[in-house]
Amino acid sequence: MKFNKVNGGVCAPKGFIAGGIHCGIRKNHTKKDLAIIFSETECTAAAVYTQNKVCGAPITVTRHNISDGRARAVICNSGNANTCNSDGVEKAALICKLTAKALGIKPTDVIIASTGVIGQPIDVEPIAKGIAALAPILTTDGAKDAAEAIMTTDTKLKECAVSFRLGPHAITVGAMAKGSGMINPNMATMLSFITSDAAITSDMLSAALKAVVDDTYNMLTVDGDTSTNDMVSVMANGMAGNPLIDSPGPGFDAFVTALKMVSVEMTRMMAADGEGATKLLQCNVTGAPAKETAKKVAKSVISSSLVKTAMFGADANWGRILCAIGYTDAEFKIDRIDVYISSPAGQIQVCKAGFGLPFSEAEAKQILLEKEILIDILMNQGDFSASAWGCDLTYDYVKINGDYRT
Amino acid sequence: MKFNKVNGGVCAPKGFIAGGIHCGIRKNHTKKDLAIIFSETECTAAAVYTQNKVCGAPITVTRHNISDGRARAVICNSGNANTCNSDGVEKAALICKLTAKALGIKPTDVIIASTGVIGQPIDVEPIAKGIAALAPILTTDGAKDAAEAIMTTDTKLKECAVSFRLGPHAITVGAMAKGSGMINPNMATMLSFITSDAAITSDMLSAALKAVVDDTYNMLTVDGDTSTNDMVSVMANGMAGNPLIDSPGPGFDAFVTALKMVSVEMTRMMAADGEGATKLLQCNVTGAPAKETAKKVAKSVISSSLVKTAMFGADANWGRILCAIGYTDAEFKIDRIDVYISSPAGQIQVCKAGFGLPFSEAEAKQILLEKEILIDILMNQGDFSASAWGCDLTYDYVKINGDYRT
Repeated sequence: MKFNKVNGGVCAPKGFIAGGIHCGIRKNHTKKDLAIIFSETECTAAAVYTQNKVCGAPITVTRHNISDGRARAVICNSGNANTCNSDGVEKAALICKLTAKALGIKPTDVIIASTGVIGQPIDVEPIAKGIAALAPILTTDGAKDAAEAIMTTDTKLKECAVSFRLGPHAITVGAMAKGSGMINPNMATMLSFITSDAAITSDMLSAALKAVVDDTYNMLTVDGDTSTNDMVSVMANGMAGNPLIDSPGPGFDAFVTALKMVSVEMTRMMAADGEGATKLLQCNVTGAPAKETAKKVAKSVISSSLVKTAMFGADANWGRILCAIGYTDAEFKIDRIDVYISSPAGQIQVCKAGFGLPFSEAEAKQILLEKEILIDILMNQGDFSASAWGCDLTYDYVKINGDYRT
Repeated sequence: MKFNKVNGGVCAPKGFIAGGIHCGIRKNHTKKDLAIIFSETECTAAAVYTQNKVCGAPITVTRHNISDGRARAVICNSGNANTCNSDGVEKAALICKLTAKALGIKPTDVIIASTGVIGQPIDVEPIAKGIAALAPILTTDGAKDAAEAIMTTDTKLKECAVSFRLGPHAITVGAMAKGSGMINPNMATMLSFITSDAAITSDMLSAALKAVVDDTYNMLTVDGDTSTNDMVSVMANGMAGNPLIDSPGPGFDAFVTALKMVSVEMTRMMAADGEGATKLLQCNVTGAPAKETAKKVAKSVISSSLVKTAMFGADANWGRILCAIGYTDAEFKIDRIDVYISSPAGQIQVCKAGFGLPFSEAEAKQILLEKEILIDILMNQGDFSASAWGCDLTYDYVKINGDYRT
């Protein structure tokens, strides 16, 4: 089966319109801060949320709204997380109500998300005015404006879409995202909104999302801090006209594949745009004795401050990689592990069976000066594998986060 | 009972001599790289080690040597960790043998430790010459030289000692340490060597060390990376002449108190000297529903990159503190938690029952511009407490670690 990347982001699937404007939550007038995505027809819907015990008010409200497996719109603001405010839930519900009214739908069909500073009361007034201004001007060309409006410390707009055919029916999955990490509180919450014109039940949509999130968004780390407001949502409106996907099978598998493709792409874009990042890091673990072990090892390496700073310095300090493998909380044999480092400039093996190998420092430097670095860990003790994505740790990370509110 | 800080470090207890020299492992001739601590008489001994699966060869050898609960000397080099080398254990054993010969003791009475780059074969020749040169010149004034010789990225020498009286007997516990974290591989391994003239059995010494390490060294974090070579050892030679401490009781308790005092002091010194640090951070958790929860919450906050960068920027971004509490892997109620931030310049409450409180940003800035910051977390749901120590995350951390081997 063929899967093609297409343009249009969240508006690539049939029947979705979107837009983004500056409504006044943020002081900078040139920065859009309010986005809406809307489906012309009813959708099945599913979402996954942060595991943080401190949970943004929008998540509480979305969890409630989406409990019937249906939604038709996403409203998202940047500039304020609406978290740790005693009136947060009330205000988030009010914003849903205003959005629903402007779009002519039910308040419980609205997915709401917010990203920005924690603990500052959110001002509903500019959002109310913004909704009234934005709802009438949503278009099929509005995906980029919407994606721009949810950006915070992001330096690049993040969207993509993938199409495939199920018999005579063309099905498209589109996505937009923001975040310099799953995994950063305050500004850098991870949000991703996915749309599709597939006809799929809410149960199967939910199953597809869960299957994909664990291997993509949940394998992304910038600094290990899990945000209070993380959310990934998906809405599917059925306008592709395919036979309803209501059980496992080839149709479901194809949908999951497309969903995974856009999710991997969003994950990679977020990792590459990690706060202060100069490099995208990917760690592939193969030959692990268990799936969970593969994931833990990949995440341990990609999360290590010392690995991240070494990559920033283009330093093939493989001892730090082995060290990060070694402190992973899982059972495995360290003395079977091989490690390779590669990039478009080449590949070197730096470690065999747990011991270092001699390699050319000059060659290593050339490889590590590239923008995308791959760390391959061959555990040689089983059949499980996993990938994790992250970025280097740089002066700019400290600058961005040492001076964020001021 | 009175506990007094005294001078002399590891040579403060009776019967210990020490020294440190440059032997040639490090290229910089002005940097000492080899230390010996020696007791005139036999000692009981105990040690704790890194939990990393990648474990330095010196740890393997020390674990074997100390298994009989006895030791008389410590040999430690900086500049090379002797880890991930296929001939590492053999060489570490040889270094013990050379040390033992020079000091006229058994090779199995030597505690060996190394700190430096991982995965580079260690050259025994300069160490052999160094041992021969150093062993004859050990003195009771040599503690500072020894403490200096184990420094790597440390900017300050770390030693202290505490004395107390057990009836007519003055007992002293001395310590030296190096490390810009438990918890950094390569250079920044945490090592601490403790000496005492107490008469105490090896079982009770081991029990005392375990009791203290969990609440001190193990509550220190700089960057979350657990080194391959971490070690804390203690030797007690009995020269104080006190009745043998061979069971729990007032004598044991007093010894544990002194041991904890030197350990807290070493922990604080390491946190304050964390790589690139400008501030010492201490997080006190009280009112936790379980001891383990108190420890996890304190460590989660002190480990958060976003809390650490905010502290560097003197930014009272309490949302990040609450966020780090929230993603702690433990069961508790977030909506009972109060948070205070303080320093010698004052104290402010920033969070009550999980919600933010208004506070003066100017006052907060004054408090956070100090060199020692205290974060007090009142969980209000139990009787357990814990403290953790760390430091801010700065440009210099990135600089030190992005450019370490070059």
